[in-house]
Amino acid sequence: MANEKKVEQITDMEVDFAQWFTDVCKKAQLIDYSSIKGVFIYRPYGYAIWENIQNIMDKEFKKVGVENVYMPLLIPENLLQKEKDHVEGFAPECAWVTMGGSEKLEERYCIRPTSETLFCEHFAQVIQSHRDLPLKYNQWCSVLRWEKTSRPFLRHREFLWQEGHTMHATAQEARDFTEQMLNVYADFCENVLAMPVTRGRKTDKEKFNGAEATYTIECMMHDRKALQAGTSHYFGDGFAKAFDITYTDKNNQRVNPHQTSWGVSTRLIGGIIMTHGDNNGLVLPPKVAPIQVVILPVAQHKPGVLEAAQELRARLAAAGLRVKLDDSDNSMGWKCAEYEMKGVPLRVECGPRDLEKGQCVLVRRTDREKVVVKLEELEAAVFQQLELVHQGMYQRAKKNLDEHIYEAHTLEEAKAIQEENGGFIKTMWCGDEACERKMKEVAGMSSRCVPFNQEHLGDTCVCCGKPAGKMIYWGVAY
Amino acid sequence: MANEKKVEQITDMEVDFAQWFTDVCKKAQLIDYSSIKGVFIYRPYGYAIWENIQNIMDKEFKKVGVENVYMPLLIPENLLQKEKDHVEGFAPECAWVTMGGSEKLEERYCIRPTSETLFCEHFAQVIQSHRDLPLKYNQWCSVLRWEKTSRPFLRHREFLWQEGHTMHATAQEARDFTEQMLNVYADFCENVLAMPVTRGRKTDKEKFNGAEATYTIECMMHDRKALQAGTSHYFGDGFAKAFDITYTDKNNQRVNPHQTSWGVSTRLIGGIIMTHGDNNGLVLPPKVAPIQVVILPVAQHKPGVLEAAQELRARLAAAGLRVKLDDSDNSMGWKCAEYEMKGVPLRVECGPRDLEKGQCVLVRRTDREKVVVKLEELEAAVFQQLELVHQGMYQRAKKNLDEHIYEAHTLEEAKAIQEENGGFIKTMWCGDEACERKMKEVAGMSSRCVPFNQEHLGDTCVCCGKPAGKMIYWGVAY
Repeated sequence: MANEKKVEQITDMEVDFAQWFTDVCKKAQLIDYSSIKGVFIYRPYGYAIWENIQNIMDKEFKKVGVENVYMPLLIPENLLQKEKDHVEGFAPECAWVTMGGSEKLEERYCIRPTSETLFCEHFAQVIQSHRDLPLKYNQWCSVLRWEKTSRPFLRHREFLWQEGHTMHATAQEARDFTEQMLNVYADFCENVLAMPVTRGRKTDKEKFNGAEATYTIECMMHDRKALQAGTSHYFGDGFAKAFDITYTDKNNQRVNPHQTSWGVSTRLIGGIIMTHGDNNGLVLPPKVAPIQVVILPVAQHKPGVLEAAQELRARLAAAGLRVKLDDSDNSMGWKCAEYEMKGVPLRVECGPRDLEKGQCVLVRRTDREKVVVKLEELEAAVFQQLELVHQGMYQRAKKNLDEHIYEAHTLEEAKAIQEENGGFIKTMWCGDEACERKMKEVAGMSSRCVPFNQEHLGDTCVCCGKPAGKMIYWGVAY
Repeated sequence: MANEKKVEQITDMEVDFAQWFTDVCKKAQLIDYSSIKGVFIYRPYGYAIWENIQNIMDKEFKKVGVENVYMPLLIPENLLQKEKDHVEGFAPECAWVTMGGSEKLEERYCIRPTSETLFCEHFAQVIQSHRDLPLKYNQWCSVLRWEKTSRPFLRHREFLWQEGHTMHATAQEARDFTEQMLNVYADFCENVLAMPVTRGRKTDKEKFNGAEATYTIECMMHDRKALQAGTSHYFGDGFAKAFDITYTDKNNQRVNPHQTSWGVSTRLIGGIIMTHGDNNGLVLPPKVAPIQVVILPVAQHKPGVLEAAQELRARLAAAGLRVKLDDSDNSMGWKCAEYEMKGVPLRVECGPRDLEKGQCVLVRRTDREKVVVKLEELEAAVFQQLELVHQGMYQRAKKNLDEHIYEAHTLEEAKAIQEENGGFIKTMWCGDEACERKMKEVAGMSSRCVPFNQEHLGDTCVCCGKPAGKMIYWGVAY
């Protein structure tokens, strides 16, 4: 057919996982490169996934009393410098504005790499009394980190994210909220994105610059590498002191509040791709898929077929589904491949013979399983199949995670397992940063987290042999 | 009462309109100043208005086939320079990034003041065939313009907006779409924000840098100054040529597509404040008010009152309304003043005597009119009152607009009317830019637009006396 473009081939993931990933990003039209190295364009199909993530997650934030705000893009250099650990961590990655129009600025401004300093400056203005607490703010925005390397969704110089910042009267309340938000993220990943997570605490070496404690959810990708999918930080009153944020407590004393921050980014989309995708392309979790159902009429030139397809489309849209009818003149083969590439969870095929029998065929993206359904039961059947797709995706990913967590007792063993199988290696650890550096040096793995679900694997550290009280997960991470 | 803070006084608008405006912005907690001159913080209550604007407007965009994307924040200098008129207009207001980490960049990057250049670079990649057209993209983001003066919502160095960018096969289709989007804005202002608008075309002097034609909606504020509330631009194929964007048409020829862009910003919130506000504070259009209904229990310590109020709250929330119950221990007087300051469209008062009679009292923010309603009819009554609030706001604003459009035939007359009454002055105009400059010089007015609804007021230009075929609106603008 003259007008028909071919669905382009992508590299098999077994041949070259990194190339497969890039192929999917490009060919499913999620993202494009800009003329600045490391800065990407979010195309409509990729951005729509983010919009769906935002819509669902924002409702969860609002349920726990979080309000959205928008803080400035630019941070004056003196403001960034107020908290020492924080500036040390971020300054090397800051992009600096030094000119306004044709004039050199008196002070240079950094484009926000994260906004703790801006929120703290504002908190100092608006927090006066214990009645102003807790204060729970969030913003959806882009941030900029001038990194050397980049990869679509996983590492951008500019990326989209949300950053929540809260202030609490007591340390305990702030700690609890830090964990609560980690659980919001974990539940979101599992229930919405069908991505199982491991919850735990980052080591001091891996925690956020300026935080007292960082909690993390770690996911396992199809290539058994780790992806840090979301983090939640407890700050104590360190920033509050540096920024002179105080409130009058019930005993009329001026004291510092306690702080948290937490964020997820468009990196989640990278996680979706690498958790669920296959050699036919993207596989999208139904709850965030821009198109949940695609209707493909068979022999659509035959009388009544297109009209019937349009009616099915209208019915599914009325049921609240994101549905597309493709009545273009591309071949059925092309269309099937195209919507598989785009990861549409469910395909509805309807041709003259089906329609005569008052039925149509649903095909799941995940396993191409075909289900014949009566037309009058379409809506219920579609919702059921979408739920099955979600469950199937979650179970497959959970199996991948569970089957690739290995136990090791020596550095050499850990290294051998990583080389052989990848995955997470669980060991005992003494808590010493030197042992983390050694693991990295010898086995190429960083610590992923000290999981909340601890197991007793022994009494000595995998690296130094000294007494060890904690079980830790190691892995090769994106 | 010890815990009770007073609702702070604001300046009367008749005393000092500018100060009244700033007072409302600050005391209704819409916005705050940051430590960078001209850069503001959108606080939760102000940002929530913007979220409501976004939600409603985004649905309208999607109805006409617009897809959201996200383009980079930074524009390489050489990219900005590709279209000559465009760069001349924007370069003086650009903030420039010159350092990445500790390294000086090879090329400097401007923070987007608007994104035509970025969209064009991308369009050149993705547009190949007539089958790729029309392409209708939009993004919600912030932009930066390094201006000298600033005022909350009206002129920020950084502000939130949306910018739509579309490409079409023919000039006619692009022109039509430019007007279609202007009408989307106009309808939104009138139907959602209760702000009547004047639709028209900008003069060449006032049009967007690089556009062939700019269309505008102009609103009249309470002080009878003009606010440009939204613009829609037709570009022809000027940018397409500069950026080498071509497509293969049906005759297999490579030709340039035709372009539009269109935008509104958080300036709309400034328009809401100055159109509807009064000396008690903000008055919010019900459709975008973060709190549409506030429930204030009277004598809430009496048995059953709080429970009844909570039930009313739950019922209104279930009906899809944004409702707040204030059961704090602040006095009734304080609460009434507070929610008037915040512009909440409708107040529900319920006390023991009302509840005994199975009724409650609704009070409109606009005119403090009280309506007693039966509890069982609450939802319907609330929707009806909110509609009446909207209608009342629109009619009051429309009266202000209609009563302050004056006709003038000489420069002196125009000047005298503006000094005496403010408002829009309509005159005939020859089309010469020199006459626009003269009007500005003599009467302090800029041209607002050549309205679509033309009237024949005479045959000669108000400034030079030469033959004139167009009626134009002049005004003092924000």
